[in-house]
Amino acid sequence: MKISIKKDSLVTQVANVSRAIQSKATISILTGIKIAATQSGLYLTGSDAEISIESFLDKTNDAYDLTIEDTGSIVVTASLFNDIIRKLPEDTVYLESNEDNSILTITSGSAVFELMGQDGSQYPHLPEFDETNKIPLPTKLFKELIDRTIFSASNQENRPYLTGLNLTVQPTHLIGVATDSHRLSRRIIPVQIEESVIDFESFTIPKKTVTELSRIVGDDEDLAMVVGNTQVIFLLEHTIIYSRLLEGNYPDTNRLIPTTSSTDIVLNSEIFHQALDRASLISHQGKNNVVLLNIIDESVELTVSGNERGQVFEKIQTKSVTGENLQISFNPDYMKEALRSFGGIDVKVQFQSAVHPMLISSEEPSDIPHNELLQLLTPIRTHHTY
Amino acid sequence: MKISIKKDSLVTQVANVSRAIQSKATISILTGIKIAATQSGLYLTGSDAEISIESFLDKTNDAYDLTIEDTGSIVVTASLFNDIIRKLPEDTVYLESNEDNSILTITSGSAVFELMGQDGSQYPHLPEFDETNKIPLPTKLFKELIDRTIFSASNQENRPYLTGLNLTVQPTHLIGVATDSHRLSRRIIPVQIEESVIDFESFTIPKKTVTELSRIVGDDEDLAMVVGNTQVIFLLEHTIIYSRLLEGNYPDTNRLIPTTSSTDIVLNSEIFHQALDRASLISHQGKNNVVLLNIIDESVELTVSGNERGQVFEKIQTKSVTGENLQISFNPDYMKEALRSFGGIDVKVQFQSAVHPMLISSEEPSDIPHNELLQLLTPIRTHHTY
Repeated sequence: MKISIKKDSLVTQVANVSRAIQSKATISILTGIKIAATQSGLYLTGSDAEISIESFLDKTNDAYDLTIEDTGSIVVTASLFNDIIRKLPEDTVYLESNEDNSILTITSGSAVFELMGQDGSQYPHLPEFDETNKIPLPTKLFKELIDRTIFSASNQENRPYLTGLNLTVQPTHLIGVATDSHRLSRRIIPVQIEESVIDFESFTIPKKTVTELSRIVGDDEDLAMVVGNTQVIFLLEHTIIYSRLLEGNYPDTNRLIPTTSSTDIVLNSEIFHQALDRASLISHQGKNNVVLLNIIDESVELTVSGNERGQVFEKIQTKSVTGENLQISFNPDYMKEALRSFGGIDVKVQFQSAVHPMLISSEEPSDIPHNELLQLLTPIRTHHTY
Repeated sequence: MKISIKKDSLVTQVANVSRAIQSKATISILTGIKIAATQSGLYLTGSDAEISIESFLDKTNDAYDLTIEDTGSIVVTASLFNDIIRKLPEDTVYLESNEDNSILTITSGSAVFELMGQDGSQYPHLPEFDETNKIPLPTKLFKELIDRTIFSASNQENRPYLTGLNLTVQPTHLIGVATDSHRLSRRIIPVQIEESVIDFESFTIPKKTVTELSRIVGDDEDLAMVVGNTQVIFLLEHTIIYSRLLEGNYPDTNRLIPTTSSTDIVLNSEIFHQALDRASLISHQGKNNVVLLNIIDESVELTVSGNERGQVFEKIQTKSVTGENLQISFNPDYMKEALRSFGGIDVKVQFQSAVHPMLISSEEPSDIPHNELLQLLTPIRTHHTY
């Protein structure tokens, strides 16, 4: 391999690909990045066992200033390569491997690095896939679907299928659900998908895959998805993200969402968030991270007490309070994340009782069909001393 | 105590005072901040055993909007108080303690916090001092003296006197020296000090004291120093910093500074810094964090080799090279810190031999008398295989 390329282009794509790579991977070659020059351009690949990211820099794209003198491929330590190219002195980078691909020489200006490498043929092959049933996705809305749900996914490996985003594909809409069984986030977005390309109606994608996808894909970039039996592939403009799917039957979450309520409050999500932020300063000091919401005679009060460091009390500004009086306790950090997903708009919080989940939704439902966000949060049962 | 005050003023001064406080202090009351309201204003105090910081918010200063209804003092957990006041909803903060100063009530808008506290009389007393022999300091230059030397102070407690900044006070100049015995930084700044106020010619101030002083004092703020037998006091406009001095005889560092050289190179400190930054990416991978500088026939080359991850070679751009050829090895991180203290100007690096310290100084000495910065760095002895 012998190529030259514009530093900035290389830096950006190496950073994207490196997101898949775990520097402490037990399979030593997976700590590396694969750099492969072909007649058509430069492929960069990074992977852990779960997710693989491949970027392609097309030789015909003038923005890259890419010249390929010799083809070939080599694997070098990703973190070190990443650090080195960012600090090179000149705008152009020259990469050259020796005959047996055991050394990569990186030259820029008067700086010459020689990195130990392995031949690219040692690197695991990425799976083949068939683009026929490619599902186009509305990029910006799909990123929003990820960002407003994925925080509710579980971090615990005892039920692995809860550690991801469950996606249901319909011709008119996509439903994204994440839950750790204490809370649940559901975002529905409108799409137009030909029924013929929908092979797999519902599947669960690992948290890391969708989080990295959301970070890598630009808001205006084309995005499509290919779903297989055990894997999903996201096609970006210059990058392909391969990921395994999570096994296990995702629970039917529709039946969890309450359809009635006995108490409703309407308030600004940001104002409620700020009050919880203050109250959690005290709740974090105690053994139980819990706040109490006291809805009484159309007034809403937030309290943390019974803590050795102190207590806090705040009357919350609301738009309306209807229904029965209620005292309910919950984890303020979970409620803060749920509220943040509404981006500052007014929300309706609906309660059935002190032991049933709270439902948070937009106060003004969208005019667009199949455009909906809801958050569900289970209360914490406590014995109140007041 | 019962007062009201502008939130921003309180936040700023609490943050300053909190710099002295260690949240894991073993003396429990020292994890607290003392809040004391007197007829003249509000005193805030924080301390660890070594350094104490006291800020005073004067009632007559309109900027603070300070009203004092009842005097008194209370100690509350500093980190929690700090977090709470920053998140309060309104611009005005009300602080009120109960009769026995066991609870502090913090009110702002509809948020009411009650923090457990201790009576202010439990807090250790700050030492008395005599302002007669107050030494005025040029604030900006003195901060520069600190910032350009203190990184060379030792972090090792086996020779405690090396863990600080040694200051020598003369009527015309101040000399600041820090050394960990591997490297030495010396900054001399011009001053005008009456001989009569100089009681203690040379003393050593703990690293934390000067670092915090440099962060807290504004470039244009008045600054003065009072030196005692065992302590030094810095007087800022609204804040007093008390610190113990380090015991032990500081070495005579003048005799360490070489007066002759056999090889001199002149180069831009920033260009040299960047090349070392690159080379250290490789040296950090190996057991020994060391780079080799090869000065040969007016050319200067930087190399790291003998490392399992790779090697690097870079020819350094210089302004001039004079004297004998030389190979010398050193710690690139120490050299980077030394170079950074020159802020990008051209420097002269002077060598005696591969085993004598290197001297780094400005290429263009200052026109102003007693205005000088020099950095000394001991080489690492290695066996070169090339």
